[in-house]
Amino acid sequence: MCEKKILIVGGVAGGATCAARLKRLSEKSHVVIFEKGEHISFANCGLPYHVGGIIRDQDNLLVSTPEEMEEKFALDIRVFNEVTSINPEKKEVEVKNLEDGSTYTEGYDYLVLSPGAEPIIPPIEGIANENVFTVRNIPDTERILDYIAKNNPKKAAVIGGGFIGIEMMENLAHIGIEVSVVDMAPQVMTFLDTDMVGQVQSEIKKHKVNLVLGDGLNKITDTGIELSSGKEIEADMIILAIGVRPDIKLAKDAGLLIGNTGAIKVDDYLQTSDPFIYAVGDAIEIKHFVDGSEAKIPLAGPANKQGRIAADNIMGRKVTYNGTQGTAIAKVFDLQVGATGLNERQLTNKGIEHKSVTIHPFSHAKYYPGASQMTLKVIFNDEGKILGAQAVGKDMVDKRIDVLATAMRFGKTVIDLQDLELVYAPPFGSAKDPVNMIGYSAQNLMEGRMSPIYIDELDDINKDDSFILDVREIYELDLGKMENATHIPLSELRESLDEIPKDKEIVVFCQIGIRGYIAEQVLRSNGYEKVKNLIGGYRSVVLNK
Amino acid sequence: MCEKKILIVGGVAGGATCAARLKRLSEKSHVVIFEKGEHISFANCGLPYHVGGIIRDQDNLLVSTPEEMEEKFALDIRVFNEVTSINPEKKEVEVKNLEDGSTYTEGYDYLVLSPGAEPIIPPIEGIANENVFTVRNIPDTERILDYIAKNNPKKAAVIGGGFIGIEMMENLAHIGIEVSVVDMAPQVMTFLDTDMVGQVQSEIKKHKVNLVLGDGLNKITDTGIELSSGKEIEADMIILAIGVRPDIKLAKDAGLLIGNTGAIKVDDYLQTSDPFIYAVGDAIEIKHFVDGSEAKIPLAGPANKQGRIAADNIMGRKVTYNGTQGTAIAKVFDLQVGATGLNERQLTNKGIEHKSVTIHPFSHAKYYPGASQMTLKVIFNDEGKILGAQAVGKDMVDKRIDVLATAMRFGKTVIDLQDLELVYAPPFGSAKDPVNMIGYSAQNLMEGRMSPIYIDELDDINKDDSFILDVREIYELDLGKMENATHIPLSELRESLDEIPKDKEIVVFCQIGIRGYIAEQVLRSNGYEKVKNLIGGYRSVVLNK
Repeated sequence: MCEKKILIVGGVAGGATCAARLKRLSEKSHVVIFEKGEHISFANCGLPYHVGGIIRDQDNLLVSTPEEMEEKFALDIRVFNEVTSINPEKKEVEVKNLEDGSTYTEGYDYLVLSPGAEPIIPPIEGIANENVFTVRNIPDTERILDYIAKNNPKKAAVIGGGFIGIEMMENLAHIGIEVSVVDMAPQVMTFLDTDMVGQVQSEIKKHKVNLVLGDGLNKITDTGIELSSGKEIEADMIILAIGVRPDIKLAKDAGLLIGNTGAIKVDDYLQTSDPFIYAVGDAIEIKHFVDGSEAKIPLAGPANKQGRIAADNIMGRKVTYNGTQGTAIAKVFDLQVGATGLNERQLTNKGIEHKSVTIHPFSHAKYYPGASQMTLKVIFNDEGKILGAQAVGKDMVDKRIDVLATAMRFGKTVIDLQDLELVYAPPFGSAKDPVNMIGYSAQNLMEGRMSPIYIDELDDINKDDSFILDVREIYELDLGKMENATHIPLSELRESLDEIPKDKEIVVFCQIGIRGYIAEQVLRSNGYEKVKNLIGGYRSVVLNK
Repeated sequence: MCEKKILIVGGVAGGATCAARLKRLSEKSHVVIFEKGEHISFANCGLPYHVGGIIRDQDNLLVSTPEEMEEKFALDIRVFNEVTSINPEKKEVEVKNLEDGSTYTEGYDYLVLSPGAEPIIPPIEGIANENVFTVRNIPDTERILDYIAKNNPKKAAVIGGGFIGIEMMENLAHIGIEVSVVDMAPQVMTFLDTDMVGQVQSEIKKHKVNLVLGDGLNKITDTGIELSSGKEIEADMIILAIGVRPDIKLAKDAGLLIGNTGAIKVDDYLQTSDPFIYAVGDAIEIKHFVDGSEAKIPLAGPANKQGRIAADNIMGRKVTYNGTQGTAIAKVFDLQVGATGLNERQLTNKGIEHKSVTIHPFSHAKYYPGASQMTLKVIFNDEGKILGAQAVGKDMVDKRIDVLATAMRFGKTVIDLQDLELVYAPPFGSAKDPVNMIGYSAQNLMEGRMSPIYIDELDDINKDDSFILDVREIYELDLGKMENATHIPLSELRESLDEIPKDKEIVVFCQIGIRGYIAEQVLRSNGYEKVKNLIGGYRSVVLNK
């Protein structure tokens, strides 16, 4: 590999990874990182936990200091140096030294843009108040912690129920602050489908958080916030976590192509419209892995991968970035909430046909202490190709999403999940792993042996034409009953067929969906033609009440 | 699907799953399960934990009672009924009712054999003593618990350091019994390579277990056991966990083909040499997924899959069983020990060329509380195809093995691991997941940018021709030093090249292997031609001392 001079704008995640890889591929190349802030390579994703005191020492957020990285990789790292403009024709950047105010130009063979994304700050009354914060970098958390120490706030309002909003909510609650969360959407965590988010919102409310949905921030007042609805919420401090916007100023001013999503346009090699300029991380427009559409998905994992790939391409290796699938997870108090791919709402909006199955498996063998029940949903197309997955539970949610994300990345189908041979010992799983079970359930659905009805379709059932059949055992009725349902336990079903009308559609349900499927088989083999089984069973209904 | 009469021999795992699937596919078929014992569908894998009191109630080991299964699936379940012979020509079996001693014949359209495997009991002196136990079923654990209650044993000897032996060791230690573990092999858990098992054995010794390796059981004495070496070990009770042998008597007597491994021969559809007889579970010879060789791999997950597949084929669906890869995990006190595929010892014995990389990643982001360092090893061939993986650590070992087992099952390479987009938030992982890191490391090795040296090759280094270079920072030397190594921290390496001879082979190492790789690049780009990096770094050396 020949020696080159490469400048990198931005020293976090993608930028830092790119620099390290460039030097490992070409020790003699001159690689400069310009970072307008004080820190490079810091743990963005740890910021909320530093506010909550879970990560006590701020230094722990620094994956590497500039000095360490310089020594380790022989990098030229310039913190408090801001690149203010690019001259693509001359292959030069203009740099401002923020410490002494001086400016200088620096030439390059290749330039890598890794400027990240900025928190969206709505132009409303009071937004500049000293008790209004964003959470993007270490100085932000310093300001928040400083404010808390000096003012001892009792109440906080978090605007936005996405990842950062929810993590800030949890961490503020953890240090004893009364939290309200406000989101314009009718739910938090919009990467989840409606039928998955109910239990997350219950968990949030259980922890005394005031959850306000379907309402926006109108203005910051002296006592807190006022919402679009007119509603007022008291708050001594306000966290803005509405979302982020790619930092494209440099790229745009330099005439680089900007995509339809408002992020920097790159090709599969992460090259911008200028062949000597690459871009990575939250500032770029990527291809969505599921449908190839243009998307912005600001996540640390993909940013790091992109940094490495840009370095490879600069060094002539020709490596493609194959899209982002949006695998993500968050801890929400005692719950783990994970997802990958697209959800049903997104697929419907895109006009992509899909089906889904939902099961409620135990984290590990039920008979071994500590097992907890999760909800696992997988979405797939007519050919069975996996389009997305979501999981909510107390434990081992991460590994099920990881396995499903892996199968997805390899273009596999739900049927292929049956074949997976996953770890099993009582503390770790079940002989039939939840991921295998998804495969079985999906196959029954795809082959038409199971006709599904989903919980959001229950309201549309025509009561005159349908017979709702609860096949749970008697002791399970304590968990709640469904209106208009006739109860015949599966254990008595075969002898009680004369109680079930042949001329109606039978909607059968059990507690989690498995016995409902068995009952469906019993009914079909006894001449019942229109039978549907409630996906996820009664548990799905309860979790979404 | 047409209605059939199917008899199943053995009601655990494969047999029970097969029965349930048969009925779901064909409600009107008559399915009979013959079980010579009292229980069907019990949790084999939970037995050691019942002895240890972790699973307190014996009923929790029963996944289903015969009554429940009969009612749920309309099965004909006959416990205490032993099939004593098969007449394939007449398509009949001879059954003995063990409760009243009567016998009868039962005809079939299809027969499924799921007899399992029996513990190996060596024909030695004292083997029939009342304090000698095996661990196969619930009556076995009843006997053990009964013996413990009555005799209050202080010391136990466990013969065999495989899964069951190790789990029994932990559970007996848990209830305060002093345990010795004896294994003829030079290590426990032979599915691990030598370089992975050191830390497991340290953990075992840390918990005061007397570990005796490379020695066999000679006889049971009045005071305990005597080993092949003549060594005597005191023991009030002895657990035999040497291994299991497929229960093939019925099959053999019926003239069915037995494979070279001594298990029942089946084809890809799990059909025996008789087209009307299928066989599943621990009694059959399967194809090893990695190399297609004949193998016996008694595991619950595969047995359940086979049960389902046999049912599918009987019902005319033509589904193949695609081999067992041996994914397994065990808790060993505070460690999690998992593996999938073949290990290096097995590959070498089979003459299969392979390479490996070993890393020591943290379970999740190091800066978030509770992170612990694991050892993760992946083995692959020249094309990068994954042949096996092993992991040992305190936490999240299961998910890394699951992801690797998934990639393996889909025939993927180590390079493909780079692409995986896995969950990341500080409590769950790292932006560069350990599985991604394996991909990066393996690529460096495959592309020749990293020349590996493995810890078991260190002893063969010719001291005159080699220069051993420790590039760790000064504060790390407290962790221990390697004899004959010259210490130059990576941060000073570039200025200290004149201290490193050009005419020798340079063996470089750091703490876990990453900076050793960087140092290797620095040296290569400065004209050093023969440089090797110690895989796994000094940590691998320490863990195997």
